[in-house]
Amino acid sequence: MIDVLDIAKNSKESFFQISNAATSEKNNILKSIKLQIIKNIDKIIQANEIDMNAGKSKGLNSAMLDRLLLNDQRIKKIAESIDEIIMLEDPVGEILNIKIRPNGLKVGQMRVPIGSILIIYEARPNVTVDAAALCLKSGNAVILKGGTEAINTNRIFVDIIRQSLIENNFNPHIVSFVDTSDRSKINELLKLDNYIDLVIPRGGENLIRAVVENSRIPVIKHYKGVCHIYIDNEYDKNIVMDIIYNAKVQRPGVCNAMETLLIHKDVATELLPTIKKMYDAAKVELFGCPRVCEILPEINSATEYDWYAEYLDLKLAVKIVDDLDEAIRHIAKYGSQHTEAIITTNYYKAEKFLRAVDSATVIVNASTRFSDGNEFGLGAEIGISTDKLHARGPMGIRELTTLKFIVYGSGQIRK
Amino acid sequence: MIDVLDIAKNSKESFFQISNAATSEKNNILKSIKLQIIKNIDKIIQANEIDMNAGKSKGLNSAMLDRLLLNDQRIKKIAESIDEIIMLEDPVGEILNIKIRPNGLKVGQMRVPIGSILIIYEARPNVTVDAAALCLKSGNAVILKGGTEAINTNRIFVDIIRQSLIENNFNPHIVSFVDTSDRSKINELLKLDNYIDLVIPRGGENLIRAVVENSRIPVIKHYKGVCHIYIDNEYDKNIVMDIIYNAKVQRPGVCNAMETLLIHKDVATELLPTIKKMYDAAKVELFGCPRVCEILPEINSATEYDWYAEYLDLKLAVKIVDDLDEAIRHIAKYGSQHTEAIITTNYYKAEKFLRAVDSATVIVNASTRFSDGNEFGLGAEIGISTDKLHARGPMGIRELTTLKFIVYGSGQIRK
Repeated sequence: MIDVLDIAKNSKESFFQISNAATSEKNNILKSIKLQIIKNIDKIIQANEIDMNAGKSKGLNSAMLDRLLLNDQRIKKIAESIDEIIMLEDPVGEILNIKIRPNGLKVGQMRVPIGSILIIYEARPNVTVDAAALCLKSGNAVILKGGTEAINTNRIFVDIIRQSLIENNFNPHIVSFVDTSDRSKINELLKLDNYIDLVIPRGGENLIRAVVENSRIPVIKHYKGVCHIYIDNEYDKNIVMDIIYNAKVQRPGVCNAMETLLIHKDVATELLPTIKKMYDAAKVELFGCPRVCEILPEINSATEYDWYAEYLDLKLAVKIVDDLDEAIRHIAKYGSQHTEAIITTNYYKAEKFLRAVDSATVIVNASTRFSDGNEFGLGAEIGISTDKLHARGPMGIRELTTLKFIVYGSGQIRK
Repeated sequence: MIDVLDIAKNSKESFFQISNAATSEKNNILKSIKLQIIKNIDKIIQANEIDMNAGKSKGLNSAMLDRLLLNDQRIKKIAESIDEIIMLEDPVGEILNIKIRPNGLKVGQMRVPIGSILIIYEARPNVTVDAAALCLKSGNAVILKGGTEAINTNRIFVDIIRQSLIENNFNPHIVSFVDTSDRSKINELLKLDNYIDLVIPRGGENLIRAVVENSRIPVIKHYKGVCHIYIDNEYDKNIVMDIIYNAKVQRPGVCNAMETLLIHKDVATELLPTIKKMYDAAKVELFGCPRVCEILPEINSATEYDWYAEYLDLKLAVKIVDDLDEAIRHIAKYGSQHTEAIITTNYYKAEKFLRAVDSATVIVNASTRFSDGNEFGLGAEIGISTDKLHARGPMGIRELTTLKFIVYGSGQIRK
């Protein structure tokens, strides 16, 4: 029986050491982890085989089994991804916005780690290493709760990480592991707001809703991505087809793929037949509003369901709108505040779309697929947020820090 | 019977208009509010008299009655405080950190309003106007739930504000009012995370704990301020007494007043008698650790309770520590992560304290009383946060905004 209160207390206690560690110390831990992963490839594969066999007898589908599977090459890739995190600039200790007040006080802010972070995720063993490495580099303690299907693989990764911490004279509780498949333990953890500062759930919408429902700790998350592209009547013919093809087809199963296409009424007749032909070739199924179906009578009629749908598949809802304002209203009503794009050559409309669409990422004249930490230059991504507080959009290492006020005085007292 | 679901839905719906309003439009609304408050002073005083009489028969203490009371002068001050908010720079629309990616995408962030904000506060009618004005200026919709004792006064302020919105062709639901003394309505509101984006509770610890306990919406708050000052063995004789006097005595009832004084063991004997004399004159009661009581046998012995205590009174816990590290550990264990200060002339110790103390505000050589939005130059303050996410320390108008990613493309697709 694991005691989650102990885990949370130990994690909190370990925070002081890692939060005050020098960049070189943190990088040394990361180097040890990389080395030990490479050294222990056979052991990791053995543990992973146990999970794979259990998964097969449990009847996991092939996509899930594929995400669970580790082999020599994949493990090496996981180890190498640590190098990228070693190379990231350490955000901790940065001082910003120092201003001198009339009384001579110098007031500014310092970037510091957040504390103990609970990461809840599904059966992707690479997240165990990625999340631990990002939290370590940013000076946070982390509690990992991965999918039960990967428990043996995760356990050995965490063992390696904790051994590396000990080797470098750090408290192993800096990286903790909730080694249980008992779901009630998650709910216990989510009440421990005295010890845990932040929860980041990663996975399907049901997992995330369950976490939000039960948590007394702040949660940063995104439920889903119902991403829109709006083609304005003033659009660039050279880019429109490439963008909407890329946004739908390049990787339809991810949260930044386009799910609804909005088209200005004045250009629908000229565009829709070409669009249909292009998507037919890619086996994309279309669901149209009545006006779209008039032009393309052979496609499916969209229902209210389709405007809210995150298909994650080669399906696309298509709607004709009267103008930019109707597009913005449609997005406000049906969108998930994840990522939306406009295709226009009109300066004012581009600026209006950027300002008025209330989503984590708003794009002019490019594919929604760019809404991603690496593509934005943040380095490794710890998740993506459609929340509005603290972090919005792709979250990199900086989003694992917080700013405190610092004040340099010389004897000032308040009058 | 009020319907809080309606209030929340209307608030959310009104957000689009105010979030996209121009600075001049928002300032015009604020000017109307100011004008109407001045015009309606008599009506406000009449409403306030009803609250005052009810408060007296309910047996509210004199401090509470004083906070509730409005007169001609106080109402004019409330109206004038709107001018300060008019003069604040509009944070909305600011664009930051634009960087050009290798593929030519320009990726940056835009500062935008948060959404619908619920403010829960006690019987201070000035908060009604302050909070509404700050939320308006930052482009947010606001739902006000003030203390029941001020309900008549608040109602007339909100009427004035909504009339001013209507006069300026804005949706009156931008400023909503929970016109009830039924506490269960608050708990209903706190579940409406589909409509309300943020809760800011202001008031006593019990109020705030009840909000956190029941909320599914993110809450930004501080429970209390157990502020520490540490006097190092290398201290500046010219400033030490003024600072510790100011931090304790100038306004003992507020959250940034000092509650515990830590003194390096090597200077305790030379300092404590003078300290005692100074505080005796100001009627400050001392509670000492055993080593302090050896030097000052006539004072009270501190118990474990005292190290956690937020006295909000002319009382002070005093402890001798062996060194800076012990001071930091004491603060980590007993502090409330609000505001702490060190008095030292040693450069390394100053920097170490700033870095290692995990509080919202950390100060070198000045009074803890400076931990305040106005003193930090933020302009009007919407509250103070000891949370680590989104806002930490005094919260000004910028903390009522969020950053979304914006991307300027020219046809890029993801490879």
